[in-house]
Amino acid sequence: MSEAVDAIETYLARSADERLEQYRAFLRIPSISALSQHAPDVAEAARFLAEAMSASGLENVEVSATEGHPVVYGDWLHAEGAPTVLVYGHYDVQPVDPLDLWVRPPFEPRVEGGCIYARGAADDKGQVHLHLWAARAWLETQGRLPVNVRYVFEGEEESGSVNFDRWLEGNRQRLAADLAVISDSGFFQDNHPAITIGLRGLVYAQIDVSGPSQDLHSGTYGGLVQNPANALAAILAGLRQPDGRVAVAGFYDEVRELSQQERSEFARLVFDDARLAADIGVPELFGEPGFGSLERRGARPTLDVNGLWGGFQGEGSKTIIPAHAHAKVSCRLVPDMDPKRTFQLLRDHVLASAPPGVEVDVWLINDGLWSLTGIDHPATEAAATALEAVFGEPPVYLREGGSIPAAASFGAMLQLPVVLLGFTPPDDHAHSPNEFMRLDNYEGGIRTIVRYWEALGSGLD
Amino acid sequence: MSEAVDAIETYLARSADERLEQYRAFLRIPSISALSQHAPDVAEAARFLAEAMSASGLENVEVSATEGHPVVYGDWLHAEGAPTVLVYGHYDVQPVDPLDLWVRPPFEPRVEGGCIYARGAADDKGQVHLHLWAARAWLETQGRLPVNVRYVFEGEEESGSVNFDRWLEGNRQRLAADLAVISDSGFFQDNHPAITIGLRGLVYAQIDVSGPSQDLHSGTYGGLVQNPANALAAILAGLRQPDGRVAVAGFYDEVRELSQQERSEFARLVFDDARLAADIGVPELFGEPGFGSLERRGARPTLDVNGLWGGFQGEGSKTIIPAHAHAKVSCRLVPDMDPKRTFQLLRDHVLASAPPGVEVDVWLINDGLWSLTGIDHPATEAAATALEAVFGEPPVYLREGGSIPAAASFGAMLQLPVVLLGFTPPDDHAHSPNEFMRLDNYEGGIRTIVRYWEALGSGLD
Repeated sequence: MSEAVDAIETYLARSADERLEQYRAFLRIPSISALSQHAPDVAEAARFLAEAMSASGLENVEVSATEGHPVVYGDWLHAEGAPTVLVYGHYDVQPVDPLDLWVRPPFEPRVEGGCIYARGAADDKGQVHLHLWAARAWLETQGRLPVNVRYVFEGEEESGSVNFDRWLEGNRQRLAADLAVISDSGFFQDNHPAITIGLRGLVYAQIDVSGPSQDLHSGTYGGLVQNPANALAAILAGLRQPDGRVAVAGFYDEVRELSQQERSEFARLVFDDARLAADIGVPELFGEPGFGSLERRGARPTLDVNGLWGGFQGEGSKTIIPAHAHAKVSCRLVPDMDPKRTFQLLRDHVLASAPPGVEVDVWLINDGLWSLTGIDHPATEAAATALEAVFGEPPVYLREGGSIPAAASFGAMLQLPVVLLGFTPPDDHAHSPNEFMRLDNYEGGIRTIVRYWEALGSGLD
Repeated sequence: MSEAVDAIETYLARSADERLEQYRAFLRIPSISALSQHAPDVAEAARFLAEAMSASGLENVEVSATEGHPVVYGDWLHAEGAPTVLVYGHYDVQPVDPLDLWVRPPFEPRVEGGCIYARGAADDKGQVHLHLWAARAWLETQGRLPVNVRYVFEGEEESGSVNFDRWLEGNRQRLAADLAVISDSGFFQDNHPAITIGLRGLVYAQIDVSGPSQDLHSGTYGGLVQNPANALAAILAGLRQPDGRVAVAGFYDEVRELSQQERSEFARLVFDDARLAADIGVPELFGEPGFGSLERRGARPTLDVNGLWGGFQGEGSKTIIPAHAHAKVSCRLVPDMDPKRTFQLLRDHVLASAPPGVEVDVWLINDGLWSLTGIDHPATEAAATALEAVFGEPPVYLREGGSIPAAASFGAMLQLPVVLLGFTPPDDHAHSPNEFMRLDNYEGGIRTIVRYWEALGSGLD
């Protein structure tokens, strides 16, 4: 341990109560970005965060307006010759329904059994807050940070990040950096420290099948016309093989196959299929043959129907041929798939398989890039060293199935390597009732970031 | 023309104004059986009808309670040695939405261009009413009817006939008859007189596909679990071949193939596929290969998805794997298919094709028998002769695609031959805004029934 880190440990031990008090105050603000009645609360959380950043010694702190909720920016840029890190987190939170399943009100934080329970405790206020204290500990004890850091805290992550890319575009000049660190992820099963090195991309489309201009009587017209709901089913069935492989022509052409080393890394992760199946209530897991569960989730593309509808959905019977039927269909993408090209393949495949007697349309709703940063990237290696020093075991490397819009934006727009370094426990109930953060993960997170900054300070090469 | 019919013609000519006035008064009562706020109107229509039956000279008139809306019964049974006819119609009507598409309010009947416009003018108050006047004309001028007639007018036909079978069961003793005549159908394209000799049966089922106990994030879980919506699509797609034939194993085993004579009868009917396609707004008609449109509608079985739903149906995107997905699926049945057996075949086929990783259930919602009365049946022949005498051309023989619950009940429960003799114009807008009846069809209908009763009076052999 360096002398600086030694002093920081002492400082952190001394300031634990003050830190927890500020953390709780942050959690008390119901900054639900998706609900317009909470807009004043989101604004209050932004102000609170900005004040805490200034109190931590950060500079150029600003609550920066967007067309929606503001981005809170701050930096410290006096580590001459050292790399610049862009830190991302978000201070908005998910809605709290169903409220009756919360043991205590979601915005009255309580500490119990080494955990702090509240909406946002893990996702993502807790992780934003631990970054402030890592910086504060350096600045209070050493008067400096070993790296340059720019903090970008979003206020709309839980409501689709609709204005974030535009804000990034408009603020490129103050986002110059060598690396992005996103703290919005967590530890692996049984609370093993983890670095998420990959995220999947997304193509989300809608398929519309139109038949007669209005619903028809299925007795009078049954046998005379193509049925849009039958047609939709045939189209959707044609997108996947029964074994789970995607049947869209050309779909796998751009997929980068896993190397032997990558497959070994996946094999190292113990994952209990039966336990997951029981947890989510399915008789068995299912997916593309030839790959393990974590490979299928992190490194293989998918095609899922997210919703479908058409015709009569009520109780009992209504004998109609529906005028139209619809589906939402999305694909998760992996390296090196191009979202635009994948959408074109999907569209072409659907239109080529459209049955006679109906009209079929396919349109893109949204898309996003995958991201992947190598295990051997110096930024990944430094994070691993810091994690092991604090938590006593080397991290596992994860490739997650979802997408974080910010990660895709940093990768695609700013051309930065992205390290996803988060500290939440794997069962944190994010997006659900009784969300919590383990306090040892939170405190260990501060200490990991403290060390990570020190390691990065000696360069990224 | 017989002397009796001659006198009846004179009587009918003289009473036209009084008849139209009573018809309009009947139409003014908004007897919408499906809407509970109209229950008093349905009751009023039943009373009005019972009074009109008594005024026509019918006997034993009774508003007979059911658990829903009443059945109105009346008879005249003094034609010793002559056959007994059971006449069926219904005095309830469809809802009137969308109201703004009606040129005049649906319950303010107006006469224009030889037609009377109002909800129920065709379906089915007009046809009930013309039966009363056929009886009245006989009784007023001859003091007798040439046949025994029992009138059964239902009040729940437009809301599923849920209590009708039970009422029939409970009233078997006063339903003894040799023949059922149902007047709830209409003329063929371009207003050609028609007798409907066949109706299809029905099996209506629901398919439920269950996966995880709640919706899952499609990023985190995509590739790990079977998707119930994809599974449902695969199941539904497996029920039909791309060419429109039903793929359920054993489905066609009981189907009675059309004879050469039956195919010739179908071929005689001019049917304009392109016009129908344009009318209902589809690019082209579609159905089982090897059969004409009217054959497909009247004499071939079908399988249609009446509705399907699952997962996200809103605007934009929600990245979930739905917890469950559902479909309503129904088959139209032809001779000699057994509804119970067909449901079993459907169920077995669905369960056999259920993909791994989900649970699938299939359950029967309701079913009904097909009916078919031969062209050479004496009751059909007598109806044809009467139609030709009044309308100047021989009728065409139709096999309709829909089901009339009463027809199936009379056939199955009372073992009666069923003649579907109705007079509505083919474009009558039943169930739609601006429903109408042609007054010459209505008046010709009375005169056809007058002659039909005379012909049946000389026996059914």
